[in-house]
Amino acid sequence: MANPTAAICVIGDEILSGRTKDKNIGWIAEQLNGLGIQLTQARVIADVKETIIRHITELSDENDYVFTSGGIGPTHDDITTESVAAAFNVKVERNQEAMRRLEQHYKGTEIVLNEVRKKMADIPVGATLIDNPVSAAPGFQLENIYVMAGVPSIMQSMFESLSASLKGGTIPTRLTVQCATGEGNVAHILEQISNQYETVSVGSYPWFKPGQFGTAVVLTGLDENLVSNAAKELCLLVKHAGFEAEDAV
Amino acid sequence: MANPTAAICVIGDEILSGRTKDKNIGWIAEQLNGLGIQLTQARVIADVKETIIRHITELSDENDYVFTSGGIGPTHDDITTESVAAAFNVKVERNQEAMRRLEQHYKGTEIVLNEVRKKMADIPVGATLIDNPVSAAPGFQLENIYVMAGVPSIMQSMFESLSASLKGGTIPTRLTVQCATGEGNVAHILEQISNQYETVSVGSYPWFKPGQFGTAVVLTGLDENLVSNAAKELCLLVKHAGFEAEDAV
Repeated sequence: MANPTAAICVIGDEILSGRTKDKNIGWIAEQLNGLGIQLTQARVIADVKETIIRHITELSDENDYVFTSGGIGPTHDDITTESVAAAFNVKVERNQEAMRRLEQHYKGTEIVLNEVRKKMADIPVGATLIDNPVSAAPGFQLENIYVMAGVPSIMQSMFESLSASLKGGTIPTRLTVQCATGEGNVAHILEQISNQYETVSVGSYPWFKPGQFGTAVVLTGLDENLVSNAAKELCLLVKHAGFEAEDAV
Repeated sequence: MANPTAAICVIGDEILSGRTKDKNIGWIAEQLNGLGIQLTQARVIADVKETIIRHITELSDENDYVFTSGGIGPTHDDITTESVAAAFNVKVERNQEAMRRLEQHYKGTEIVLNEVRKKMADIPVGATLIDNPVSAAPGFQLENIYVMAGVPSIMQSMFESLSASLKGGTIPTRLTVQCATGEGNVAHILEQISNQYETVSVGSYPWFKPGQFGTAVVLTGLDENLVSNAAKELCLLVKHAGFEAEDAV
């Protein structure tokens, strides 16, 4: 059976302007891989309501899960919550449990839970809260969309809160064969292995160091035995062709 | 007049699996910002022909420029060239100038310009070559698509080769006002400034250090005077509200 699929949608003008470098796509990608959920695509989009609605709708239709990051704070430019709600035609309301968590979090601090901060307790009707162990203000799940904060440490704590609820699949087996030659010398072998093992994906990644170069061949698939056989056969063929090859992890 | 628009399309299974972390989106985003070209979105997609055709077509229709990275090497999984050609219904042919560059590059080395490596000289008919000062094998421009390598150092050298040919716009003015308080205390001021200066985008980015926190307010717009006035007014209003604020660069 095929693994569940997912998409990532990073929402934020600060990424598109180059001011902030995204760290969320790579981190979530690794987590999903470890859960046996196939990441089909990732997008970075602007803080514009119509834009968010359009992309969320598309990604929701095409994937089992969609993970968003960014745009759920208290300021005027935080419009992810209202946009995701609008994408599913539901209203946003002040969530009592979210309010309780904010009150608890700010109690005994100098920070006043003013009207603006209360906005972080506004959650689409019917959504499930996502815990935020770092700064209390929750994310939420609505249909197959998981809405998380943009700050990497907060997003990561939210993902770790929710990941046990995801239905994972088979964790892919990934083996790397290091070839001590350029990819142009082993490309025909890679193609042969790729054709022979249809369910094993064969990726080729050349690398260069001063005075040294080589090709990392990454074999990935859901059937551990097939991937292992493909790696062994690749190794043999590369050695037959006169180059060093090593079955690395 | 509005600035030209652009999209980035990173093509590569290794990014979606989390094995490799993308560094190209952030780098290109910064370059475009410095050229006055507005990055509207970025996508990371899989090495699948139909997927590449679909996304390239969409992004090409909606933007003045599209920059791709990844998938133009010599191996079987490098399918960006044929996919981009297919998106525009043109054929791929062995390009004589690209062949000349590869021959020149490999002359006097131990590397044989075999059939597989010659594949890197296959370019869509009607495309313009993009210079590759690092490893010779060129990228190409077809219609409004700029096809570049995935390895960051090579991609960067290609972008620097082509950037003078891009029609830029007004370089945005970006000013940061540092507020020594949480964003929940200044959100109403940010909203007021955002409403008052319609063409100035007001972004709010909270930050935390041990024992310290604050909000970086980033004002961006094409009219330098308006951005500057908005920053000054914001500073005054934040100080009036009883918090420290500094007009940083």
